[in-house]
Amino acid sequence: MTDLTLLNESRCFGGLQRTYEHASSSCNCLMRFATYLPPAAEHRLVPSVYWLSGLTCTEENFSIKSGAQRYAAELEIALIIPDTSPRGVGLPGENEHLEVGNGAGFYVDATQPPWSAHYQMYTYVSSELVNVVNANLPLDPDRKSISGHSMGGHGALLLASRKPHEYRSISAFAPICSVIRSAWGQHALNHYLGPDKNLWLAYDACESIRRQPNGHIILVDQGDLDPYLNQLQPAELQSACKASGQELRYRKRKGYDHSYFFVGTFIEEHLRFHAQALI
Amino acid sequence: MTDLTLLNESRCFGGLQRTYEHASSSCNCLMRFATYLPPAAEHRLVPSVYWLSGLTCTEENFSIKSGAQRYAAELEIALIIPDTSPRGVGLPGENEHLEVGNGAGFYVDATQPPWSAHYQMYTYVSSELVNVVNANLPLDPDRKSISGHSMGGHGALLLASRKPHEYRSISAFAPICSVIRSAWGQHALNHYLGPDKNLWLAYDACESIRRQPNGHIILVDQGDLDPYLNQLQPAELQSACKASGQELRYRKRKGYDHSYFFVGTFIEEHLRFHAQALI
Repeated sequence: MTDLTLLNESRCFGGLQRTYEHASSSCNCLMRFATYLPPAAEHRLVPSVYWLSGLTCTEENFSIKSGAQRYAAELEIALIIPDTSPRGVGLPGENEHLEVGNGAGFYVDATQPPWSAHYQMYTYVSSELVNVVNANLPLDPDRKSISGHSMGGHGALLLASRKPHEYRSISAFAPICSVIRSAWGQHALNHYLGPDKNLWLAYDACESIRRQPNGHIILVDQGDLDPYLNQLQPAELQSACKASGQELRYRKRKGYDHSYFFVGTFIEEHLRFHAQALI
Repeated sequence: MTDLTLLNESRCFGGLQRTYEHASSSCNCLMRFATYLPPAAEHRLVPSVYWLSGLTCTEENFSIKSGAQRYAAELEIALIIPDTSPRGVGLPGENEHLEVGNGAGFYVDATQPPWSAHYQMYTYVSSELVNVVNANLPLDPDRKSISGHSMGGHGALLLASRKPHEYRSISAFAPICSVIRSAWGQHALNHYLGPDKNLWLAYDACESIRRQPNGHIILVDQGDLDPYLNQLQPAELQSACKASGQELRYRKRKGYDHSYFFVGTFIEEHLRFHAQALI
Protein backbone atom coordinates (compact mmCIF):
# COMPACT_ATOMS: atom_id res chain seq x y z
CA MET A 1 0.00 0.00 0.00
CA THR A 2 1.43 3.35 -1.08
CA ASP A 3 1.99 5.88 1.64
CA LEU A 4 0.03 9.04 1.04
CA THR A 5 1.12 12.27 2.68
CA LEU A 6 -1.79 14.58 3.41
CA LEU A 7 -0.64 18.12 2.53
CA ASN A 8 -3.81 19.98 3.33
CA GLU A 9 -7.46 19.44 4.06
CA SER A 10 -10.45 21.78 4.09
CA ARG A 11 -14.06 21.03 4.79
CA CYS A 12 -16.19 21.97 1.80
CA PHE A 13 -19.91 21.42 1.28
CA GLY A 14 -19.89 19.01 4.21
CA GLY A 15 -17.17 16.82 2.67
CA LEU A 16 -13.39 17.07 2.56
CA GLN A 17 -11.14 18.69 -0.02
CA ARG A 18 -7.63 17.29 0.30
CA THR A 19 -4.25 17.44 -1.40
CA TYR A 20 -2.02 14.38 -1.19
CA GLU A 21 1.56 13.67 -2.19
CA HIS A 22 3.02 10.22 -2.82
CA ALA A 23 6.04 8.51 -4.33
CA SER A 24 5.09 7.51 -7.87
CA SER A 25 6.78 4.43 -9.30
CA SER A 26 5.73 5.22 -12.87
CA CYS A 27 6.89 8.85 -12.80
CA ASN A 28 9.83 8.13 -10.49
CA CYS A 29 9.18 11.23 -8.38
CA LEU A 30 6.76 12.64 -5.85
CA MET A 31 3.37 13.32 -7.41
CA ARG A 32 0.50 15.37 -6.06
CA PHE A 33 -3.20 14.96 -6.53
CA ALA A 34 -6.28 16.55 -5.03
CA THR A 35 -9.45 14.80 -4.05
CA TYR A 36 -12.88 15.76 -2.89
CA LEU A 37 -14.67 13.24 -0.71
CA PRO A 38 -18.39 13.87 -0.37
CA PRO A 39 -20.10 13.54 3.02
CA ALA A 40 -21.45 10.12 1.94
CA ALA A 41 -17.87 8.79 1.85
CA GLU A 42 -17.84 8.82 5.66
CA HIS A 43 -20.30 5.92 5.61
CA ARG A 44 -19.68 3.89 2.46
CA LEU A 45 -17.66 3.47 -0.70
CA VAL A 46 -18.53 6.10 -3.31
CA PRO A 47 -17.97 6.23 -7.09
CA SER A 48 -15.40 8.62 -8.48
CA VAL A 49 -14.97 11.05 -11.35
CA TYR A 50 -11.40 11.61 -12.51
CA TRP A 51 -10.72 15.16 -13.69
CA LEU A 52 -7.76 15.74 -16.01
CA SER A 53 -6.63 19.37 -16.17
CA GLY A 54 -5.22 21.43 -18.99
CA LEU A 55 -1.87 22.99 -19.85
CA THR A 56 -0.20 25.00 -17.05
CA CYS A 57 -2.58 23.59 -14.43
CA THR A 58 -1.79 21.71 -11.27
CA GLU A 59 -4.21 19.71 -9.14
CA GLU A 60 -5.25 23.04 -7.64
CA ASN A 61 -6.99 24.76 -10.55
CA PHE A 62 -10.07 22.58 -10.81
CA SER A 63 -10.16 22.27 -7.02
CA ILE A 64 -10.42 26.00 -6.39
CA LYS A 65 -12.09 27.26 -9.56
CA SER A 66 -14.77 24.84 -10.71
CA GLY A 67 -17.23 24.83 -7.82
CA ALA A 68 -17.67 21.10 -8.55
CA GLN A 69 -17.71 20.13 -4.86
CA ARG A 70 -21.25 21.40 -4.41
CA TYR A 71 -22.56 18.90 -6.95
CA ALA A 72 -20.19 16.10 -5.96
CA ALA A 73 -21.48 16.41 -2.38
CA GLU A 74 -25.09 16.18 -3.48
CA LEU A 75 -24.48 13.37 -5.99
CA GLU A 76 -22.25 11.43 -3.57
CA ILE A 77 -19.33 11.26 -6.00
CA ALA A 78 -15.64 11.60 -5.16
CA LEU A 79 -13.43 13.76 -7.39
CA ILE A 80 -9.89 12.62 -8.21
CA ILE A 81 -7.76 15.43 -9.61
CA PRO A 82 -4.18 14.57 -10.65
CA ASP A 83 -1.45 17.05 -11.44
CA THR A 84 -0.65 17.49 -15.14
CA SER A 85 3.03 16.45 -15.09
CA PRO A 86 5.90 15.38 -12.88
CA ARG A 87 7.34 18.27 -10.84
CA GLY A 88 10.73 19.17 -9.51
CA VAL A 89 12.63 16.55 -11.50
CA GLY A 90 14.94 19.16 -13.00
CA LEU A 91 14.94 18.12 -16.66
CA PRO A 92 16.57 20.54 -19.11
CA GLY A 93 14.00 22.59 -21.00
CA GLU A 94 11.22 21.63 -18.60
CA ASN A 95 10.05 25.23 -18.16
CA GLU A 96 10.77 26.62 -21.62
CA HIS A 97 7.47 25.93 -23.35
CA LEU A 98 3.82 26.12 -22.40
CA GLU A 99 3.13 22.81 -24.12
CA VAL A 100 6.15 20.67 -23.14
CA GLY A 101 7.45 19.82 -19.68
CA ASN A 102 6.02 21.16 -16.44
CA GLY A 103 2.26 21.37 -16.56
CA ALA A 104 2.16 19.70 -19.95
CA GLY A 105 2.43 15.92 -19.55
CA PHE A 106 -0.25 15.35 -22.21
CA TYR A 107 -1.17 12.02 -20.55
CA VAL A 108 1.35 10.04 -22.62
CA ASP A 109 4.21 7.71 -21.65
CA ALA A 110 7.35 9.39 -22.98
CA THR A 111 9.85 7.16 -24.77
CA GLN A 112 12.50 9.80 -25.49
CA PRO A 113 15.17 11.01 -23.08
CA PRO A 114 15.25 13.02 -20.97
CA TRP A 115 11.45 12.88 -20.64
CA SER A 116 11.14 9.10 -20.49
CA ALA A 117 12.74 8.98 -17.03
CA HIS A 118 9.71 10.72 -15.48
CA TYR A 119 6.98 11.71 -17.92
CA GLN A 120 4.84 8.56 -17.75
CA MET A 121 1.53 10.29 -17.30
CA TYR A 122 -0.55 7.76 -19.26
CA THR A 123 0.47 4.93 -16.95
CA TYR A 124 0.33 7.18 -13.92
CA VAL A 125 -3.22 8.43 -14.44
CA SER A 126 -4.78 5.35 -16.03
CA SER A 127 -3.22 2.78 -13.75
CA GLU A 128 -0.95 3.76 -10.84
CA LEU A 129 -3.09 6.58 -9.48
CA VAL A 130 -6.21 4.41 -9.76
CA ASN A 131 -4.57 1.73 -7.62
CA VAL A 132 -3.29 4.31 -5.15
CA VAL A 133 -6.63 6.00 -4.55
CA ASN A 134 -8.60 2.75 -4.50
CA ALA A 135 -6.22 1.35 -1.87
CA ASN A 136 -6.31 4.44 0.32
CA LEU A 137 -9.66 6.18 -0.05
CA PRO A 138 -13.27 5.03 0.43
CA LEU A 139 -13.90 4.52 -3.31
CA ASP A 140 -15.85 1.85 -5.13
CA PRO A 141 -13.22 0.62 -7.62
CA ASP A 142 -15.87 -0.58 -10.06
CA ARG A 143 -17.51 2.79 -10.53
CA LYS A 144 -15.28 5.35 -12.26
CA SER A 145 -15.93 8.04 -14.82
CA ILE A 146 -13.64 10.57 -16.44
CA SER A 147 -13.70 14.17 -17.58
CA GLY A 148 -11.25 16.96 -18.29
CA HIS A 149 -10.51 20.32 -19.82
CA SER A 150 -8.45 21.22 -22.90
CA MET A 151 -5.30 19.02 -22.81
CA GLY A 152 -7.09 17.11 -20.04
CA GLY A 153 -10.18 16.80 -22.22
CA HIS A 154 -7.98 15.00 -24.71
CA GLY A 155 -6.64 12.90 -21.87
CA ALA A 156 -10.15 11.91 -20.83
CA LEU A 157 -11.15 11.00 -24.40
CA LEU A 158 -7.89 9.09 -24.87
CA LEU A 159 -8.00 7.06 -21.66
CA ALA A 160 -11.66 6.21 -22.13
CA SER A 161 -11.06 5.20 -25.74
CA ARG A 162 -8.08 3.01 -24.95
CA LYS A 163 -9.68 1.52 -21.85
CA PRO A 164 -13.38 1.41 -22.72
CA HIS A 165 -14.30 -0.90 -19.84
CA GLU A 166 -12.58 1.21 -17.19
CA TYR A 167 -14.85 4.25 -17.25
CA ARG A 168 -18.61 4.25 -17.10
CA SER A 169 -19.00 7.67 -18.70
CA ILE A 170 -16.85 10.24 -20.50
CA SER A 171 -17.09 13.98 -20.87
CA ALA A 172 -14.84 16.88 -21.78
CA PHE A 173 -14.78 20.67 -21.74
CA ALA A 174 -13.18 22.31 -24.76
CA PRO A 175 -10.92 19.30 -25.38
CA ILE A 176 -7.95 19.23 -27.68
CA CYS A 177 -9.74 16.70 -29.86
CA SER A 178 -6.80 15.32 -31.79
CA VAL A 179 -3.37 15.76 -30.27
CA ILE A 180 -1.60 14.92 -33.54
CA ARG A 181 -3.47 17.70 -35.35
CA SER A 182 -2.84 20.39 -32.69
CA ALA A 183 0.35 22.49 -32.92
CA TRP A 184 0.72 22.21 -29.13
CA GLY A 185 0.30 18.46 -29.30
CA GLN A 186 2.72 18.04 -32.21
CA HIS A 187 5.40 19.95 -30.34
CA ALA A 188 4.83 17.88 -27.19
CA LEU A 189 4.72 14.50 -28.94
CA ASN A 190 7.87 15.30 -30.87
CA HIS A 191 9.63 15.74 -27.54
CA TYR A 192 7.99 12.84 -25.71
CA LEU A 193 7.71 10.22 -28.49
CA GLY A 194 10.25 11.34 -31.08
CA PRO A 195 9.78 12.39 -34.70
CA ASP A 196 8.15 9.19 -36.05
CA LYS A 197 4.54 10.23 -36.33
CA ASN A 198 3.35 6.64 -36.64
CA LEU A 199 4.25 6.27 -32.98
CA TRP A 200 1.99 9.18 -32.09
CA LEU A 201 -1.19 7.52 -33.31
CA ALA A 202 -1.65 5.36 -30.22
CA TYR A 203 -2.01 8.55 -28.16
CA ASP A 204 -4.52 10.32 -30.36
CA ALA A 205 -8.11 10.34 -29.13
CA CYS A 206 -9.67 10.84 -32.56
CA GLU A 207 -7.62 8.05 -34.11
CA SER A 208 -8.68 5.76 -31.29
CA ILE A 209 -12.35 6.70 -31.58
CA ARG A 210 -12.21 6.37 -35.36
CA ARG A 211 -11.02 2.77 -34.99
CA GLN A 212 -13.63 1.77 -32.45
CA PRO A 213 -16.53 3.36 -30.57
CA ASN A 214 -16.39 2.72 -26.85
CA GLY A 215 -20.00 1.97 -26.09
CA HIS A 216 -20.69 5.07 -23.99
CA ILE A 217 -21.98 8.48 -24.95
CA ILE A 218 -19.28 11.17 -25.00
CA LEU A 219 -20.49 14.51 -23.66
CA VAL A 220 -18.58 17.60 -24.84
CA ASP A 221 -19.14 21.29 -24.17
CA GLN A 222 -17.30 23.87 -26.28
CA GLY A 223 -17.55 27.65 -26.07
CA ASP A 224 -17.90 29.42 -29.39
CA LEU A 225 -15.70 32.32 -28.22
CA ASP A 226 -12.88 29.97 -27.23
CA PRO A 227 -9.66 31.60 -28.53
CA TYR A 228 -7.97 28.20 -29.04
CA LEU A 229 -10.32 26.60 -31.54
CA ASN A 230 -7.46 26.10 -34.01
CA GLN A 231 -5.72 23.92 -31.42
CA LEU A 232 -8.88 22.15 -30.26
CA GLN A 233 -10.45 21.31 -33.64
CA PRO A 234 -13.86 20.09 -32.51
CA ALA A 235 -14.80 19.17 -36.09
CA GLU A 236 -12.18 16.40 -35.97
CA LEU A 237 -13.95 14.79 -33.02
CA GLN A 238 -17.32 15.07 -34.71
CA SER A 239 -15.89 13.48 -37.83
CA ALA A 240 -14.19 10.65 -35.93
CA CYS A 241 -17.34 9.84 -33.96
CA LYS A 242 -19.41 9.80 -37.13
CA ALA A 243 -16.94 7.47 -38.81
CA SER A 244 -17.15 4.79 -36.14
CA GLY A 245 -20.68 5.34 -34.90
CA GLN A 246 -19.46 6.69 -31.56
CA GLU A 247 -22.34 8.53 -29.91
CA LEU A 248 -21.38 12.16 -29.21
CA ARG A 249 -23.41 14.75 -27.35
CA TYR A 250 -21.73 17.96 -28.49
CA ARG A 251 -22.95 21.33 -27.29
CA LYS A 252 -21.67 24.61 -28.68
CA ARG A 253 -22.05 27.20 -25.92
CA LYS A 254 -22.76 30.67 -27.20
CA GLY A 255 -20.56 33.42 -25.77
CA TYR A 256 -18.34 31.17 -23.65
CA ASP A 257 -14.53 31.13 -23.74
CA HIS A 258 -11.88 28.64 -22.58
CA SER A 259 -11.73 29.66 -18.91
CA TYR A 260 -12.87 28.03 -15.70
CA PHE A 261 -15.81 30.46 -15.76
CA PHE A 262 -17.00 28.29 -18.66
CA VAL A 263 -16.17 25.04 -16.84
CA GLY A 264 -17.86 26.23 -13.65
CA THR A 265 -21.01 27.13 -15.52
CA PHE A 266 -21.52 23.63 -16.94
CA ILE A 267 -19.80 21.31 -14.46
CA GLU A 268 -23.15 20.62 -12.78
CA GLU A 269 -24.54 19.17 -16.00
CA HIS A 270 -21.44 17.04 -16.50
CA LEU A 271 -21.49 15.65 -12.98
CA ARG A 272 -25.20 14.85 -13.26
CA PHE A 273 -24.44 13.09 -16.57
CA HIS A 274 -21.72 11.03 -14.87
CA ALA A 275 -23.91 10.34 -11.83
CA GLN A 276 -26.49 8.64 -14.04
CA ALA A 277 -23.84 6.19 -15.23
CA LEU A 278 -22.36 5.70 -11.76
CA ILE A 279 -25.52 4.80 -9.85
CA MET B 1 -17.95 60.06 -15.96
CA THR B 2 -14.87 57.96 -15.18
CA ASP B 3 -13.36 56.03 -18.03
CA LEU B 4 -13.29 52.33 -17.33
CA THR B 5 -10.86 50.09 -19.17
CA LEU B 6 -12.20 46.58 -19.65
CA LEU B 7 -9.28 44.19 -19.01
CA ASN B 8 -11.09 40.92 -19.50
CA GLU B 9 -14.54 39.46 -19.82
CA SER B 10 -15.85 35.90 -19.60
CA ARG B 11 -19.36 34.62 -19.87
CA CYS B 12 -20.35 32.81 -16.70
CA PHE B 13 -23.72 31.35 -15.76
CA GLY B 14 -25.28 33.32 -18.59
CA GLY B 15 -23.96 36.65 -17.29
CA LEU B 16 -20.62 38.43 -17.61
CA GLN B 17 -17.59 38.30 -15.35
CA ARG B 18 -15.40 41.32 -16.01
CA THR B 19 -12.27 43.01 -14.69
CA TYR B 20 -11.99 46.78 -15.05
CA GLU B 21 -9.22 49.28 -14.42
CA HIS B 22 -9.73 53.00 -13.86
CA ALA B 23 -7.90 56.07 -12.62
CA SER B 24 -8.83 56.54 -8.99
CA SER B 25 -8.85 60.09 -7.66
CA SER B 26 -8.93 59.00 -4.02
CA CYS B 27 -6.07 56.49 -4.33
CA ASN B 28 -4.21 58.57 -6.92
CA CYS B 29 -3.37 55.54 -9.04
CA LEU B 30 -4.97 52.99 -11.34
CA MET B 31 -7.31 50.69 -9.42
CA ARG B 32 -8.82 47.40 -10.51
CA PHE B 33 -12.10 45.82 -9.63
CA ALA B 34 -14.04 42.82 -10.83
CA THR B 35 -17.75 42.63 -11.40
CA TYR B 36 -20.28 39.97 -12.21
CA LEU B 37 -23.34 41.13 -14.09
CA PRO B 38 -26.21 38.63 -14.04
CA PRO B 39 -28.20 37.91 -17.22
CA ALA B 40 -31.00 40.15 -15.88
CA ALA B 41 -28.67 43.17 -16.16
CA GLU B 42 -29.05 43.03 -19.94
CA HIS B 43 -32.62 44.22 -19.53
CA ARG B 44 -32.80 46.36 -16.39
CA LEU B 45 -30.97 47.88 -13.46
CA VAL B 46 -30.05 45.28 -10.86
CA PRO B 47 -29.09 45.57 -7.19
CA SER B 48 -25.51 44.91 -6.15
CA VAL B 49 -23.59 43.16 -3.42
CA TYR B 50 -20.14 44.58 -2.68
CA TRP B 51 -17.57 41.95 -1.70
CA LEU B 52 -14.52 43.07 0.27
CA SER B 53 -11.65 40.58 0.19
CA GLY B 54 -9.07 39.66 2.78
CA LEU B 55 -5.33 40.09 3.22
CA THR B 56 -3.17 39.18 0.18
CA CYS B 57 -6.20 39.03 -2.11
CA THR B 58 -6.87 40.96 -5.28
CA GLU B 59 -10.19 41.33 -7.08
CA GLU B 60 -9.51 37.90 -8.55
CA ASN B 61 -9.76 35.62 -5.52
CA PHE B 62 -13.48 35.87 -4.85
CA SER B 63 -14.13 35.98 -8.61
CA ILE B 64 -12.47 32.64 -9.32
CA LYS B 65 -12.88 30.79 -6.02
CA SER B 66 -16.28 31.50 -4.51
CA GLY B 67 -18.68 30.13 -7.12
CA ALA B 68 -20.92 33.10 -6.22
CA GLN B 69 -21.86 33.78 -9.85
CA ARG B 70 -24.24 30.84 -9.94
CA TYR B 71 -26.39 32.37 -7.21
CA ALA B 72 -25.95 35.97 -8.37
CA ALA B 73 -27.27 34.92 -11.79
CA GLU B 74 -30.32 33.25 -10.28
CA LEU B 75 -31.00 36.04 -7.77
CA GLU B 76 -30.39 38.79 -10.36
CA ILE B 77 -27.74 40.54 -8.27
CA ALA B 78 -24.53 42.15 -9.52
CA LEU B 79 -21.29 41.53 -7.61
CA ILE B 80 -18.80 44.38 -7.16
CA ILE B 81 -15.37 43.13 -6.08
CA PRO B 82 -12.69 45.76 -5.42
CA ASP B 83 -8.99 45.11 -5.01
CA THR B 84 -7.67 45.27 -1.43
CA SER B 85 -5.12 48.08 -1.85
CA PRO B 86 -3.49 50.42 -4.34
CA ARG B 87 -0.98 48.65 -6.60
CA GLY B 88 2.21 49.63 -8.31
CA VAL B 89 2.67 52.91 -6.47
CA GLY B 90 6.14 51.93 -5.31
CA LEU B 91 6.00 52.95 -1.65
CA PRO B 92 8.90 51.82 0.54
CA GLY B 93 7.99 48.79 2.64
CA GLU B 94 4.88 48.07 0.58
CA ASN B 95 5.74 44.38 0.17
CA GLU B 96 7.45 43.69 3.49
CA HIS B 97 4.49 42.61 5.58
CA LEU B 98 1.41 40.49 5.04
CA GLU B 99 -0.72 43.01 6.91
CA VAL B 100 0.61 46.38 5.67
CA GLY B 101 0.89 47.68 2.11
CA ASN B 102 0.02 45.68 -0.99
CA GLY B 103 -3.04 43.54 -0.46
CA ALA B 104 -3.63 45.02 2.97
CA GLY B 105 -5.41 48.36 2.66
CA PHE B 106 -7.69 47.53 5.62
CA TYR B 107 -10.38 49.83 4.16
CA VAL B 108 -9.07 52.90 6.00
CA ASP B 109 -7.96 56.35 4.80
CA ALA B 110 -4.29 56.60 5.73
CA THR B 111 -3.14 59.88 7.30
CA GLN B 112 0.55 59.03 7.65
CA PRO B 113 3.18 59.33 4.93
CA PRO B 114 4.07 57.60 2.75
CA TRP B 115 0.75 55.70 2.85
CA SER B 116 -1.50 58.76 2.85
CA ALA B 117 -0.60 59.59 -0.77
CA HIS B 118 -2.42 56.47 -2.03
CA TYR B 119 -3.94 54.28 0.67
CA GLN B 120 -7.42 55.84 0.83
CA MET B 121 -9.36 52.61 0.69
CA TYR B 122 -12.23 53.75 2.94
CA THR B 123 -13.10 56.62 0.63
CA TYR B 124 -12.37 54.53 -2.44
CA VAL B 125 -14.66 51.63 -1.57
CA SER B 126 -17.41 53.48 0.27
CA SER B 127 -17.69 56.43 -2.09
CA GLU B 128 -15.57 56.68 -5.26
CA LEU B 129 -16.07 53.11 -6.46
CA VAL B 130 -19.80 53.33 -5.78
CA ASN B 131 -20.04 56.41 -7.99
CA VAL B 132 -17.89 54.80 -10.67
CA VAL B 133 -19.90 51.61 -10.94
CA ASN B 134 -23.27 53.35 -10.70
CA ALA B 135 -22.27 55.70 -13.52
CA ASN B 136 -20.99 52.94 -15.78
CA LEU B 137 -22.87 49.74 -15.09
CA PRO B 138 -26.57 48.81 -15.12
CA LEU B 139 -26.96 49.03 -11.33
CA ASP B 140 -29.79 50.34 -9.21
CA PRO B 141 -27.94 52.85 -6.98
CA ASP B 142 -30.55 52.55 -4.24
CA ARG B 143 -30.12 48.83 -3.69
CA LYS B 144 -26.71 47.89 -2.31
CA SER B 145 -25.59 45.32 0.22
CA ILE B 146 -22.14 44.42 1.49
CA SER B 147 -20.20 41.35 2.53
CA GLY B 148 -16.58 40.29 2.87
CA HIS B 149 -14.03 37.86 4.21
CA SER B 150 -11.49 38.27 7.03
CA MET B 151 -9.97 41.79 6.65
CA GLY B 152 -12.79 42.39 4.15
CA GLY B 153 -15.33 41.10 6.66
CA HIS B 154 -14.14 43.86 8.96
CA GLY B 155 -14.41 46.27 6.05
CA ALA B 156 -18.01 45.24 5.44
CA LEU B 157 -18.95 45.60 9.12
CA LEU B 158 -17.14 48.96 9.27
CA LEU B 159 -18.65 50.52 6.17
CA ALA B 160 -22.14 49.35 7.07
CA SER B 161 -21.75 50.64 10.63
CA ARG B 162 -20.46 54.03 9.58
CA LYS B 163 -22.93 54.38 6.72
CA PRO B 164 -26.03 52.56 7.98
CA HIS B 165 -28.33 53.95 5.30
CA GLU B 166 -26.07 52.98 2.42
CA TYR B 167 -26.39 49.21 2.65
CA ARG B 168 -29.57 47.23 2.90
CA SER B 169 -27.94 44.16 4.42
CA ILE B 170 -24.59 43.14 5.88
CA SER B 171 -22.79 39.85 6.17
CA ALA B 172 -19.28 38.58 6.75
CA PHE B 173 -17.25 35.39 6.58
CA ALA B 174 -14.71 34.92 9.36
CA PRO B 175 -14.31 38.68 9.82
CA ILE B 176 -11.58 40.38 11.78
CA CYS B 177 -14.17 41.66 14.22
CA SER B 178 -12.19 44.45 15.85
CA VAL B 179 -9.23 45.82 13.96
CA ILE B 180 -7.82 47.56 17.04
CA ARG B 181 -7.75 44.26 18.95
CA SER B 182 -6.10 42.23 16.17
CA ALA B 183 -2.29 42.10 15.99
CA TRP B 184 -2.52 42.41 12.19
CA GLY B 185 -4.82 45.40 12.52
CA GLN B 186 -2.69 47.12 15.14
CA HIS B 187 0.37 46.84 12.93
CA ALA B 188 -1.52 48.19 9.93
CA LEU B 189 -3.19 51.07 11.78
CA ASN B 190 0.08 52.11 13.34
CA HIS B 191 1.45 52.54 9.81
CA TYR B 192 -1.65 54.09 8.26
CA LEU B 193 -2.94 56.28 11.12
CA GLY B 194 0.06 56.72 13.39
CA PRO B 195 0.61 55.69 17.01
CA ASP B 196 -2.29 57.64 18.64
CA LYS B 197 -4.78 54.85 19.28
CA ASN B 198 -7.62 57.31 19.82
CA LEU B 199 -7.45 57.98 16.11
CA TRP B 200 -7.94 54.28 15.39
CA LEU B 201 -11.37 54.07 17.00
CA ALA B 202 -13.21 55.56 14.03
CA TYR B 203 -12.08 52.60 11.94
CA ASP B 204 -13.04 49.84 14.35
CA ALA B 205 -16.20 47.91 13.50
CA CYS B 206 -16.87 46.77 17.07
CA GLU B 207 -16.45 50.28 18.48
CA SER B 208 -18.84 51.58 15.86
CA ILE B 209 -21.42 48.87 16.52
CA ARG B 210 -21.06 49.34 20.27
CA ARG B 211 -21.96 53.01 19.87
CA GLN B 212 -24.98 52.43 17.65
CA PRO B 213 -26.82 49.49 16.06
CA ASN B 214 -27.44 49.99 12.38
CA GLY B 215 -30.97 48.73 12.05
CA HIS B 216 -30.15 45.66 9.95
CA ILE B 217 -29.37 42.11 10.94
CA ILE B 218 -25.67 41.24 10.60
CA LEU B 219 -25.09 37.71 9.30
CA VAL B 220 -21.74 36.12 10.18
CA ASP B 221 -20.36 32.65 9.46
CA GLN B 222 -17.23 31.49 11.27
CA GLY B 223 -15.47 28.14 10.97
CA ASP B 224 -14.49 26.54 14.26
CA LEU B 225 -11.24 25.18 12.76
CA ASP B 226 -10.18 28.63 11.54
CA PRO B 227 -6.47 28.97 12.43
CA TYR B 228 -6.76 32.76 12.85
CA LEU B 229 -9.32 32.98 15.65
CA ASN B 230 -6.89 34.98 17.81
CA GLN B 231 -6.84 37.66 15.11
CA LEU B 232 -10.57 37.48 14.35
CA GLN B 233 -11.96 37.49 17.90
CA PRO B 234 -15.60 36.71 17.20
CA ALA B 235 -16.48 37.10 20.89
CA GLU B 236 -15.74 40.83 20.55
CA LEU B 237 -18.39 41.18 17.88
CA GLN B 238 -20.91 39.23 19.92
CA SER B 239 -20.20 41.44 22.89
CA ALA B 240 -20.43 44.68 20.92
CA CYS B 241 -23.73 43.66 19.34
CA LYS B 242 -25.15 42.70 22.71
CA ALA B 243 -24.10 46.05 24.18
CA SER B 244 -25.97 48.13 21.62
CA GLY B 245 -28.81 45.77 20.78
CA GLN B 246 -27.44 45.15 17.27
CA GLU B 247 -29.09 42.03 15.89
CA LEU B 248 -26.46 39.42 14.99
CA ARG B 249 -27.04 36.09 13.30
CA TYR B 250 -23.81 34.28 14.14
CA ARG B 251 -23.20 30.72 12.98
CA LYS B 252 -20.26 28.65 14.12
CA ARG B 253 -19.53 26.16 11.33
CA LYS B 254 -18.19 22.88 12.57
CA GLY B 255 -15.05 21.63 10.83
CA TYR B 256 -14.57 24.64 8.54
CA ASP B 257 -11.37 26.66 8.22
CA HIS B 258 -10.55 30.14 6.84
CA SER B 259 -10.30 29.23 3.15
CA TYR B 260 -12.45 29.92 0.14
CA PHE B 261 -13.67 26.32 0.43
CA PHE B 262 -15.49 27.64 3.52
CA VAL B 263 -16.69 30.78 1.72
CA GLY B 264 -17.83 28.79 -1.30
CA THR B 265 -19.84 26.43 0.88
CA PHE B 266 -21.93 29.19 2.46
CA ILE B 267 -21.96 31.99 -0.13
CA GLU B 268 -25.34 30.78 -1.41
CA GLU B 269 -26.92 31.39 2.00
CA HIS B 270 -25.35 34.83 2.22
CA LEU B 271 -26.52 35.89 -1.23
CA ARG B 272 -30.04 34.63 -0.51
CA PHE B 273 -29.95 36.63 2.74
CA HIS B 274 -28.91 39.76 0.81
CA ALA B 275 -31.45 39.11 -1.94
CA GLN B 276 -34.28 39.27 0.58
CA ALA B 277 -33.18 42.78 1.55
CA LEU B 278 -32.58 43.86 -2.04
CA ILE B 279 -35.93 42.90 -3.57
